[in-house]
Amino acid sequence: MAANGHTNGGVAKESRFDPNFTQNVINATGPKATPRFRKLISSLIKHVHDFARENELTVEEWMAAIDLVNEAGKMSDDKRNETQLLCDIIGLESLVDEITFKLAAETNDAATASAILGPFFRHDAPILENESSIVDNVPDGEITYMHGIVRDLVTKKPVEGAWIDVWQASTNGLYEQQDPDQKDCNLRGKFKSDANGHYGFYCIRPTPYPIPYDGAGGKLLTLLDRHPYRPAHIHVIVQKDGYKPITTQIFDKKSKYLEDDSVFAVKDSLVVDFTPLKGNPKAELELEYDLVIAPQGV
Amino acid sequence: MAANGHTNGGVAKESRFDPNFTQNVINATGPKATPRFRKLISSLIKHVHDFARENELTVEEWMAAIDLVNEAGKMSDDKRNETQLLCDIIGLESLVDEITFKLAAETNDAATASAILGPFFRHDAPILENESSIVDNVPDGEITYMHGIVRDLVTKKPVEGAWIDVWQASTNGLYEQQDPDQKDCNLRGKFKSDANGHYGFYCIRPTPYPIPYDGAGGKLLTLLDRHPYRPAHIHVIVQKDGYKPITTQIFDKKSKYLEDDSVFAVKDSLVVDFTPLKGNPKAELELEYDLVIAPQGV
Repeated sequence: MAANGHTNGGVAKESRFDPNFTQNVINATGPKATPRFRKLISSLIKHVHDFARENELTVEEWMAAIDLVNEAGKMSDDKRNETQLLCDIIGLESLVDEITFKLAAETNDAATASAILGPFFRHDAPILENESSIVDNVPDGEITYMHGIVRDLVTKKPVEGAWIDVWQASTNGLYEQQDPDQKDCNLRGKFKSDANGHYGFYCIRPTPYPIPYDGAGGKLLTLLDRHPYRPAHIHVIVQKDGYKPITTQIFDKKSKYLEDDSVFAVKDSLVVDFTPLKGNPKAELELEYDLVIAPQGV
Repeated sequence: MAANGHTNGGVAKESRFDPNFTQNVINATGPKATPRFRKLISSLIKHVHDFARENELTVEEWMAAIDLVNEAGKMSDDKRNETQLLCDIIGLESLVDEITFKLAAETNDAATASAILGPFFRHDAPILENESSIVDNVPDGEITYMHGIVRDLVTKKPVEGAWIDVWQASTNGLYEQQDPDQKDCNLRGKFKSDANGHYGFYCIRPTPYPIPYDGAGGKLLTLLDRHPYRPAHIHVIVQKDGYKPITTQIFDKKSKYLEDDSVFAVKDSLVVDFTPLKGNPKAELELEYDLVIAPQGV
């Protein structure tokens, strides 16, 4: 038997590819898949297939993408998540953050805006007293007193006992877990708001730094002809039982890269002024920043 | 300064998310990106963002996907490509194959149809004489004499000196590089068509087998509530200088899973009959299969 030739079937010239293929793949999903997973994977299959057809993706291009993703997986570990970084570079983490925030804020829009977590959060940051410092041996750091009131979105009253997690990179652009020369948990701390809702600590004025570009993320940036820099920022998470947690970043208004953040995380309401501080020998600058949290269910 | 609240701007209720975000990410691509990469990444960003918005993707879902992709990368090596397998499960390799074939065949539709390469091809298969066997020690294998003529699509004449790469899994469902009990390069060989265009060799009747499901691919199949089986098939690549190469798979008409191949590779024109063979003590079955290759530029 000589079998050859491909079947063109009823495919019209304008849809040169099999019009049923994608639906067939979607329909293969079994009855025990959860409704949410079925929705997600059906949509993902449709978008991925449309992407391939619209661009007439070649085997070589597809394999190059697979190589990059495999490389990202191999590089990822407890201290580094390169696949997350690839997503960040194409704006996906910031978009998922926007979706999360918009959904949480549908009935209100006055809680502190959110921003991406990023890959450098640690669950084991040291618990520190208010008015203490997170800075160890950063000679060129401009010491800043950051403080404010944690408020309830509805009552506007101060919230006591809220946990405020903060972390920032050093002036060399590295977080402590990236940098063997920094003390463990340098520039990282967890504070608790007092009876007046007050929190306060000493940090450094943040400086811009590049996201890691020695791996798959760097290759993607090179292909994109983009720089790896992020504007200067301080990471903050606010949590309190009975309230919706907030993950955010606060950006220095004078920083470079506010307009072209490599991971697209800047929001106008998160850009703040660092002002000169007088009469406090412990710091050169002040950053007053109130944190507004919404009760659960609002 | 108390900074809080998010800016809703002019976003209409029906587009609850920032309508400019995706275009801003696309516009960040620099001037030195190649035109093809710019087209691909712009389309990818649009589809990935639309996917996230349409499904209101949560941080937890996105992180679960990242974990799966990182796991696939870590599992991949010279002998296994788990990210490719993830793509296969959602039909992407078969779709890219269809795109490749349709583009190559736009001016003709009679060359042998293509099918996906799959992850088990080896570049270093042994070169064997026609009429020899690729089978080493497969006691329950039904020995099959596969043969045919390699023909030129245009002249219909036999083509001498075409290379035919073949490989198949053993009856235990494993390719030799997955199975320490098989001899190196078992069930794998490279043949050359003779002056009459003839090729011929002894193999086994292929049997269905599961794609590897002990890693990220298996997790995806479980989420999809799908089985991992592929219908019985023999892989073939045909190459000859001056002709377009063909990568394909030939499927046994009597096999299970022709209708629900776990990687969606079956095409009608590639489904063939294995017929009883009389008068040849070396084989029980015969598979006659001509291979039609198109000259470059046609």
